[in-house]
Amino acid sequence: MPIKSEVIANPKSERVRRVSELADRKGRKRSGRFMVEGPQSVRELLTWHPGLVEDLYVEVESAQPDASFATPVVAQMAGKAMQSGVYVHKVTHAVMHRMSADAQGVLAVADMQAFLDSSAAPDDFDEHAMVAAFWQVRDPGNAGTVIRSADAAGCSAVVLVDDCVDVFNPKVIRSTVGSLFHLPILTMGTDDFFAWCDTHELAVYAADVYGTDSRQPESLTDVIAAPETLAGAKAVLFGNEARGLTKEVLERTDRIVSIPLYGKAESLNLGTSSAVMLLSLAMSSHVERM
Amino acid sequence: MPIKSEVIANPKSERVRRVSELADRKGRKRSGRFMVEGPQSVRELLTWHPGLVEDLYVEVESAQPDASFATPVVAQMAGKAMQSGVYVHKVTHAVMHRMSADAQGVLAVADMQAFLDSSAAPDDFDEHAMVAAFWQVRDPGNAGTVIRSADAAGCSAVVLVDDCVDVFNPKVIRSTVGSLFHLPILTMGTDDFFAWCDTHELAVYAADVYGTDSRQPESLTDVIAAPETLAGAKAVLFGNEARGLTKEVLERTDRIVSIPLYGKAESLNLGTSSAVMLLSLAMSSHVERM
Repeated sequence: MPIKSEVIANPKSERVRRVSELADRKGRKRSGRFMVEGPQSVRELLTWHPGLVEDLYVEVESAQPDASFATPVVAQMAGKAMQSGVYVHKVTHAVMHRMSADAQGVLAVADMQAFLDSSAAPDDFDEHAMVAAFWQVRDPGNAGTVIRSADAAGCSAVVLVDDCVDVFNPKVIRSTVGSLFHLPILTMGTDDFFAWCDTHELAVYAADVYGTDSRQPESLTDVIAAPETLAGAKAVLFGNEARGLTKEVLERTDRIVSIPLYGKAESLNLGTSSAVMLLSLAMSSHVERM
Repeated sequence: MPIKSEVIANPKSERVRRVSELADRKGRKRSGRFMVEGPQSVRELLTWHPGLVEDLYVEVESAQPDASFATPVVAQMAGKAMQSGVYVHKVTHAVMHRMSADAQGVLAVADMQAFLDSSAAPDDFDEHAMVAAFWQVRDPGNAGTVIRSADAAGCSAVVLVDDCVDVFNPKVIRSTVGSLFHLPILTMGTDDFFAWCDTHELAVYAADVYGTDSRQPESLTDVIAAPETLAGAKAVLFGNEARGLTKEVLERTDRIVSIPLYGKAESLNLGTSSAVMLLSLAMSSHVERM
């Protein structure tokens, strides 16, 4: 599709206001759309799910029809979008800034339902599959970081369990740096999660340092030293950033694994601990297969 | 030492201004002091290095001499400080806010030179010792996070190599969540770092995904699968968050190790990759010793 030659230059126009409202859950609900900001996220969106994109806004240097793109990266994204048949709209700096302060010259508007439809989990998991699950993760930056780590660890899907932050929150999307478009992201309640794991024969590992009265956590050091025990598909469940997992949730899991702390630090944050746990399990599983 | 009964209530006083200026490098240089904000960091400072603390400021509910502490945690810190012989000053909310927006009711002022003197590295490292080194880390939040991970991995010291962010930057200190006071933090130039490693018989591992023209990185998966190769004291060197390590620096290292990425993510950020690398090496080293 062609790039529109006229430049959107009025920051107060209806279209610009509507895009800016996608920063809020209410605006997203009303329009059924979400925004994807910045070159890295937009590139991954255009690479993996170009069909979701309804409009791409790219910043140009002035309101003249022949104005240059704001940066070479912006020009590159515009070219990539046109190849994918996406509508590309040129906008001034003022318009882009009104749409989002974090777009770095490129902002895509995409369809939420189409994303959810395209983000279905596989029907079957192979014996080495690992799913990353996060229970009541509330901080948008954390949610994005853990999705990125799940991607790096080669997880087959991410499940946001119970009352988690909205995955379409722009800060979540920015923090995934494109990983949102690399693997299925599912949302379900606690009971549904355990039923789903049961149906798909996923063993549930809890990442937790305390355990329950009757079950001490196994140390991750011991777990990776016996990689033969890691055979079989699994879901690794992480708790809320402040409160962890409840005893009730822990009781329903198959294994409880804690990251050893060798120094005087009392804890790791959710982003760090999920990266260490998921990559360690992925590496051990790959060693076992060699 | 007793707690002063009068409450500091004037946000414009000379003392309050001087404390607030410790947020900037210039202010720290002028006075030779730095600020430690928030209950977690202050608790670790008082636990491990009470002798560094010159003054502790705690927030009370009003300017009356008998005003209550702002929160139970603030009261606890005041008690802990008095046991350690630290001067405790009561301040109003307005004064605390003028000193720092991130103090959560508790702020300590400590001596920079005394910290540096107390933060000396061991003369000898045992055969399992690991040092975490960061070359040109510039982002204060990253620097704090990596110090926390080095602490969790049981590192014997952290070395900030070449032109790194100032470790006394309040954002660095907040991001370490107290780990700054758990292990020696050293600062040195690149040549000095390699000479220091040589003197202390530390093998230098570079964490890097690219390697050089003549040296491909080893995968961390392979490295931890052969823990016998990890014997001996080592320093693990991480590069700048945007540019990594230069070829020149890489050529001077003994091993180059990369974290495998199993999914579609292109990279991990510095905080995540240092946590995964340091904890993985620590766990492997502990497995080897079992």
